[in-house]
Amino acid sequence: MDQIRVGIVGGTGYGAIELIRLLLNHPVAVIHCLVSRSEAGRSVGDVFPHLRGRLDLYYQAPETDELHACDVVFFATPNGVAMRQAPDLLARDLKIIDLSADFRLRDHKIWSQWYGEPHVCPELLEGAVYGLPELSRDSIKDARLVANPGCYPTAIILAYLPLLRAGIRVQGDLIADAKSGASGAGRGATVRNLLTELSENFRAYGVEGHRHLPEIRQALESISGKSHELIFVPHVVPMIRGIHATCYAEIPGDVDIQAIYERAYGEEPFVDVLEPGLYPETRSVRAVNFCRIALYRPPQSSRVVILSVIDNLVKGAAGQAIQNMNLMFGLSEITGLDDSPMVP
Amino acid sequence: MDQIRVGIVGGTGYGAIELIRLLLNHPVAVIHCLVSRSEAGRSVGDVFPHLRGRLDLYYQAPETDELHACDVVFFATPNGVAMRQAPDLLARDLKIIDLSADFRLRDHKIWSQWYGEPHVCPELLEGAVYGLPELSRDSIKDARLVANPGCYPTAIILAYLPLLRAGIRVQGDLIADAKSGASGAGRGATVRNLLTELSENFRAYGVEGHRHLPEIRQALESISGKSHELIFVPHVVPMIRGIHATCYAEIPGDVDIQAIYERAYGEEPFVDVLEPGLYPETRSVRAVNFCRIALYRPPQSSRVVILSVIDNLVKGAAGQAIQNMNLMFGLSEITGLDDSPMVP
Amino acid sequence: MDQIRVGIVGGTGYGAIELIRLLLNHPVAVIHCLVSRSEAGRSVGDVFPHLRGRLDLYYQAPETDELHACDVVFFATPNGVAMRQAPDLLARDLKIIDLSADFRLRDHKIWSQWYGEPHVCPELLEGAVYGLPELSRDSIKDARLVANPGCYPTAIILAYLPLLRAGIRVQGDLIADAKSGASGAGRGATVRNLLTELSENFRAYGVEGHRHLPEIRQALESISGKSHELIFVPHVVPMIRGIHATCYAEIPGDVDIQAIYERAYGEEPFVDVLEPGLYPETRSVRAVNFCRIALYRPPQSSRVVILSVIDNLVKGAAGQAIQNMNLMFGLSEITGLDDSPMVP
Amino acid sequence: MDQIRVGIVGGTGYGAIELIRLLLNHPVAVIHCLVSRSEAGRSVGDVFPHLRGRLDLYYQAPETDELHACDVVFFATPNGVAMRQAPDLLARDLKIIDLSADFRLRDHKIWSQWYGEPHVCPELLEGAVYGLPELSRDSIKDARLVANPGCYPTAIILAYLPLLRAGIRVQGDLIADAKSGASGAGRGATVRNLLTELSENFRAYGVEGHRHLPEIRQALESISGKSHELIFVPHVVPMIRGIHATCYAEIPGDVDIQAIYERAYGEEPFVDVLEPGLYPETRSVRAVNFCRIALYRPPQSSRVVILSVIDNLVKGAAGQAIQNMNLMFGLSEITGLDDSPMVP
Repeated sequence: MDQIRVGIVGGTGYGAIELIRLLLNHPVAVIHCLVSRSEAGRSVGDVFPHLRGRLDLYYQAPETDELHACDVVFFATPNGVAMRQAPDLLARDLKIIDLSADFRLRDHKIWSQWYGEPHVCPELLEGAVYGLPELSRDSIKDARLVANPGCYPTAIILAYLPLLRAGIRVQGDLIADAKSGASGAGRGATVRNLLTELSENFRAYGVEGHRHLPEIRQALESISGKSHELIFVPHVVPMIRGIHATCYAEIPGDVDIQAIYERAYGEEPFVDVLEPGLYPETRSVRAVNFCRIALYRPPQSSRVVILSVIDNLVKGAAGQAIQNMNLMFGLSEITGLDDSPMVP
Repeated sequence: MDQIRVGIVGGTGYGAIELIRLLLNHPVAVIHCLVSRSEAGRSVGDVFPHLRGRLDLYYQAPETDELHACDVVFFATPNGVAMRQAPDLLARDLKIIDLSADFRLRDHKIWSQWYGEPHVCPELLEGAVYGLPELSRDSIKDARLVANPGCYPTAIILAYLPLLRAGIRVQGDLIADAKSGASGAGRGATVRNLLTELSENFRAYGVEGHRHLPEIRQALESISGKSHELIFVPHVVPMIRGIHATCYAEIPGDVDIQAIYERAYGEEPFVDVLEPGLYPETRSVRAVNFCRIALYRPPQSSRVVILSVIDNLVKGAAGQAIQNMNLMFGLSEITGLDDSPMVP
Repeated sequence: MDQIRVGIVGGTGYGAIELIRLLLNHPVAVIHCLVSRSEAGRSVGDVFPHLRGRLDLYYQAPETDELHACDVVFFATPNGVAMRQAPDLLARDLKIIDLSADFRLRDHKIWSQWYGEPHVCPELLEGAVYGLPELSRDSIKDARLVANPGCYPTAIILAYLPLLRAGIRVQGDLIADAKSGASGAGRGATVRNLLTELSENFRAYGVEGHRHLPEIRQALESISGKSHELIFVPHVVPMIRGIHATCYAEIPGDVDIQAIYERAYGEEPFVDVLEPGLYPETRSVRAVNFCRIALYRPPQSSRVVILSVIDNLVKGAAGQAIQNMNLMFGLSEITGLDDSPMVP
Repeated sequence: MDQIRVGIVGGTGYGAIELIRLLLNHPVAVIHCLVSRSEAGRSVGDVFPHLRGRLDLYYQAPETDELHACDVVFFATPNGVAMRQAPDLLARDLKIIDLSADFRLRDHKIWSQWYGEPHVCPELLEGAVYGLPELSRDSIKDARLVANPGCYPTAIILAYLPLLRAGIRVQGDLIADAKSGASGAGRGATVRNLLTELSENFRAYGVEGHRHLPEIRQALESISGKSHELIFVPHVVPMIRGIHATCYAEIPGDVDIQAIYERAYGEEPFVDVLEPGLYPETRSVRAVNFCRIALYRPPQSSRVVILSVIDNLVKGAAGQAIQNMNLMFGLSEITGLDDSPMVP
């Protein structure tokens, strides 16, 4: 393939900005079309001065035909948009990677319960592949419609995946105490997300029900074959990027959990299992498509603590979407995703 | 009493700076003497420009006799200093409030295990009162030597106190996933605590054993009368002040935990139990001697999630020390501690 | 006077929140009435959880009669509101302190040029007193309508005041390179002020004309009796509070500028002139009604650099408003404003 | 050339970490040897967990012979180290790019005055090329010893370069009011640079004489052929990366300064002159080797305000060093430096 022509719908949110940054670094993909209702007609460099001179494109209105000339369309839109455009696009010869939540849940009834409206194309849900390569790499390769996982789900599912896949007997509930930078809340103008409100402050939110909860539960169940009680408490950290999930599980005392994780992720290009005694920090994956995981077993305890970090905008969104694109187009999985983390 | 003459040993750390800020606002206490080995001879305003014109004192060397003229001496020193000076001071007619860890553990063997040296005055440990007023107000009133609790312990013990005091049967272990601003690490010069290392970053630390662990365990055991398995994972948040403890426990499903907490803290001047559906943020207690607590029971679950916030430098250190001083000197507990939180 | 009954209109912005924090600490003033169109009917503690238990009031609609029972009304409203309510209120027996810009400019034509609408009560402008006590303390004492200065103007006018008042001959233009924390932009929901947009970022704004420019020019002219060319470049700092103005002027080489400033501010309760070689930082005035100023004369140069810091929400807004109130009601100027800065 | 073997001395500071990040992205350069006295013997991934799996090297002691096998050696050391090793290395067949200040000043007497010790190899100063490509690209191509400019000098010299090169008559002094993120101060452990000291704070520093002052003066004089009075006031911003220089000059009113800058930088790969009305922000160059500049002429004024932003660790250090390397080895100047800025 000479090149992959890429379209991005919802081109002004953080997911889209990050897609642009990463795709400009991709040797095969070329951004062909950017769609934004609010910025239609303006050049990318006008809207985002940091992209001056790097991308000579104008935002298109949603009605544009240019998307049809793409090989793949990324949706970086609010929930509810992709499901309205997907059927028409899939009828053409292109693939879709949806960074929103429209195709993440298999059960349209659960979807509408959490997202507050009926799903408009439930018939597509079965064919949609949940795009976590470490979980379902082969299905992604053949998929035409990929549901890119949420940021919290990526960090938390990767934290529990080897444990559940190995069939370790988990007692009681799972607890995922998760912390995210503010970019997870998107680029919308809200008082809650002002610097003056978030900075020098720390709080939980969505305690009574975050939309990522059913998504994580579904994935965990698909791994172990049984349902898991999951307590999921998200918090917002006064920083821009990064997720740190501190995950707890009760397991038999004689399980060599470190060995299980090292084996499970030994061949994975984007997951690093730290040696015992090391613990990850979010900046160690800043700006890159990577997850670092550490394990801790308190002495005389049946607990295991699993610490997992990602950059929510990369492995938790745009980077993983490109990883999925690479798989869908038969490229090496790491194509365009080999940069080093930005520290400090 | 006309006034309380106060001495502060270890006068240049964040605990001492905060003691000074709060005591300058106290109607009865007067700072009589400040001790710092490193800054002896310099004026307070020279060392801390924000105190120019507010406190006309010079730092004294540790050998000063001025401490003997005090009614109460606060130790805001590194661990290991207070225990060396306390016996001599207690032989005089004054009281001691130790913000360091020297007198927090009743068992000197556990103390030396965690603090890496023998305790030099183990005979004082039994008489020392653990200065958490919500736990042991009456003993504090009569104490001459108060061990001011650590910051994490304050947030976490207050989170579990009503639960354990009410005799609710807790199943399995307790999990305290705690997050602290950087001032908890003190004012020492270390690479790890540079802005360039902490900012835009989030990580756990002390996973394998934080010194506050035995302190919390001891207090929980003193409440319930039995030992508790506690998993304690501290994290550092890129902000200056504030602790948020997210605490988990498994309890019978029919317990009205909200009512228990409201009752337990109903008369407490410095603890606020939020209504169901509200969750605390650290800035809601910024700069004040206050703890806010919320409870959440996930549906169909035997878990309770207890969220607890304090300002680590106030209710977690200097403010609580002054609250203890008020009790020890027969003052109203809120004297000098009635300011409003600083938001934003 | 037993107490001063205070009304606050525009009760949900940062100016109002800070007024509430400071007034709760004031021994004479009592908050009688809070007005907010958007939050009318809700309790203060509901809207601002950090005020739970501290202020038992409900927000009133703007039409409330309760304002009439006040001794003084603070307007912490967007520009254009106070001028519509002031005439009616002044017809009653109360005083007004306007934290917005409605009464700051003497010339209503300049006002409407900068604020984009005609002034509705230009006849009140002459009687309004510009409320910078260091500039016009005596007039404030007798005023019924005080225009509380803007935050940048406070820092910059205090930086130049002694220089101009002393009649030093200034050559060429004045340059005020000013930096402000994000709270200066208020609590409105805008993309530009999200943490994700401001954090880890620094930029100038309003370069081509900030509304504080004519206000500063007017004050400087009133001091020296002649017009000054002023270059004013504001920047936004990724922090919540604080203004640092770095001000430049060209003056004769033989002027003892340090002596002039020390003399000018020697008796001022809220201005501190640092000794040569010391330079101020914004946190040294955090949360307090204070301005710190330092002077630097580069060797062999006719320049003087004047560095001036304030907390934009206190000396730059709410604190100065209370200082004005104290003057207007014959109280000691420092009443309720004697707290120590919050460091760290 | 197959590849460029690179050595880095002083391998644990921020300059070195950034060199590593950028060089890992460079298609021709290969890191051959890393020298650090403090970390000798440890693997890079051990010292910097974010580099785990990316660079399989161990730190060498300074005495290592491995440097001799390099084609180019970068010094990212404290001042005073490079000048001690350079003569020996230059006697071999390799090139040196010094990110420290050892070879930046042509006059060794001025150097020792600012750096507090005699220069040990003043005879090398004349042959050293000041490595600002926009200023002296051709000399850099032929250089064997390049003095990589300081971060402030890069931002400020690029701000004034077209003005002075065009021979515009500047009246009076130049004022450079500069603001830098904290990484400019390096990775040393100091109280001043703790998050708790820098965060939520803004201050000037080095007012009475920053070491970058003579460096900037020397460059400006080399451009215009005459000496310039320069007032340089640096400030520290509570963020990690970025410099914003707000530069002032007085010039004749009829100069079309915008046209001069657009022409001067029209062909430059790493300098962007914004259109009138646009102003740069530091994040628009975050993580990339780029400088953005804007110009503003206040109405009826002879002033011009020049706003210039860079990432201090990239265009202000490691990126510029690689740009210089590209020039010295005959590569396209942008090789390995074509990434997009990281926003948000």
